Amino acid sequence: KTLGEKNNGFDVLYHNMKHGQISSKELTDFIRERVTIEETYGRSMTKLAKSASNFSQLGTFAPLWDVFKTSTEKLAVCHLELVRKLQELIKEVQKYVDDQAKAHKKTKEEVAATLEAVQNIQSISQALQKSKENYFSKTLEQERLRKEGATQRDLDKTGLKVKKAMEAYKSFVEKYAAAKSEFEQKMAETAEKFQVIEENHIIHMKEIVQSYSCSVEETHVQIGEVQKEFVNNMENTSVENLIQKFAESKGTGKERPGPIDFEECNVAAATEGAKP
Amino acid sequence: KTLGEKNNGFDVLYHNMKHGQISSKELTDFIRERVTIEETYGRSMTKLAKSASNFSQLGTFAPLWDVFKTSTEKLAVCHLELVRKLQELIKEVQKYVDDQAKAHKKTKEEVAATLEAVQNIQSISQALQKSKENYFSKTLEQERLRKEGATQRDLDKTGLKVKKAMEAYKSFVEKYAAAKSEFEQKMAETAEKFQVIEENHIIHMKEIVQSYSCSVEETHVQIGEVQKEFVNNMENTSVENLIQKFAESKGTGKERPGPIDFEECNVAAATEGAKP
Repeated sequence: KTLGEKNNGFDVLYHNMKHGQISSKELTDFIRERVTIEETYGRSMTKLAKSASNFSQLGTFAPLWDVFKTSTEKLAVCHLELVRKLQELIKEVQKYVDDQAKAHKKTKEEVAATLEAVQNIQSISQALQKSKENYFSKTLEQERLRKEGATQRDLDKTGLKVKKAMEAYKSFVEKYAAAKSEFEQKMAETAEKFQVIEENHIIHMKEIVQSYSCSVEETHVQIGEVQKEFVNNMENTSVENLIQKFAESKGTGKERPGPIDFEECNVAAATEGAKP
Repeated sequence: KTLGEKNNGFDVLYHNMKHGQISSKELTDFIRERVTIEETYGRSMTKLAKSASNFSQLGTFAPLWDVFKTSTEKLAVCHLELVRKLQELIKEVQKYVDDQAKAHKKTKEEVAATLEAVQNIQSISQALQKSKENYFSKTLEQERLRKEGATQRDLDKTGLKVKKAMEAYKSFVEKYAAAKSEFEQKMAETAEKFQVIEENHIIHMKEIVQSYSCSVEETHVQIGEVQKEFVNNMENTSVENLIQKFAESKGTGKERPGPIDFEECNVAAATEGAKP
């Protein structure tokens, strides 16, 4: 509503459609780059979880590597889940890019008449200016001849030229009024059209951003839960518990070896068995 | 307290110190790997923020790239701040690795006497078994000679051998009792020492894990704030606002071009100025 009220406003609006297409492509690029970053992060986390599971299974600390491994794997899943969601979103954005290009093509056809009206008023405006200049110069010429005392015949001839110039000028004033009315009507419709296109573009772009933002937030909440679980699992594994676990797996027995007493050789018993 | 109550329990505890050193080195490796991952992520985010700032400054969506840029930069800072904190932590863990190695070396010296007592009781135990076997075999030999009706001279000779074998056997039973007492005392002290070492190790390791976890959590909270700010900034930029901003920067004027009326040529005025 605040645009296009001079003859070159149409141009600005017409070319602005192109910026709409650029911005939706750039948004795809931005999300795609974010996907790459999250994918790299997720894969690195998977690798880190594997490292944790390859660490020594001996010693008192060993059971805690399981906590690290599980938590790191879950962290990887969170980020790879975000990757999956954003890849879905990219598909949607690409669909929008295509739809937008089609819509813009259609609009360009629809506003062709407006473009004609713009070109028409611009050329009539120039012609009007020229005809006005011609009428003024012819009138001054007539005045000059009158002052110089020219013949009636010359004055009549010039008078005819002035009349013709004035009629041409008047005709362009009328044509201009008609072109202006046509232009204003077409331009109002077109400006409305462009306004709707632009509003829809921004609304759609903001929806995409919101969907992006929503996925990122969901992932953030999930990561928070993984982190909380990690802290709980660490806290639940007490020092006593770890020492106890170690003792149970490595313990060499709970009873002390008994004393060894002197045994007299019982010949009868000894000859029965082969050895004492 | 549940360990080392058999003669080879000492060995298990002694070699377990090594696992303590392995686990602290592995924890350093784990944190270092996480640092690398976070650094890569942070740098990629910095690059992504730069991409956002290089996107088109034209069109209605353009002002939103600033929101993306600022938010992505802040996200990068969060992760790079985590990198800094974890690098500090790695320094602490490395100090612990060194201190632990020194403490273990000192402990190995302190338990040398226990190792000796272990070896002593093991060798006496074997000698005792041999001397018992010898006493039993000599006694059976004497019985065999008696049954075969050997001379008194031979029986006396064998009787002396039996007496000697029994005395040697009795002496090992006594030596074993003394070695056992020595072993048990030393082993009790040493098991206590190992228990303290192990408990301190786990306590220290859990402190490191807690510090690690704390830094990760702080970063998570910061990222949450950045995300919240992003959502707010997006919501605060309405569609109307973006259209308005665009109109102000690109607008070609708010007033409609006026009508063009026919002007009669005023000769007096026209001759004053050079052109109409």
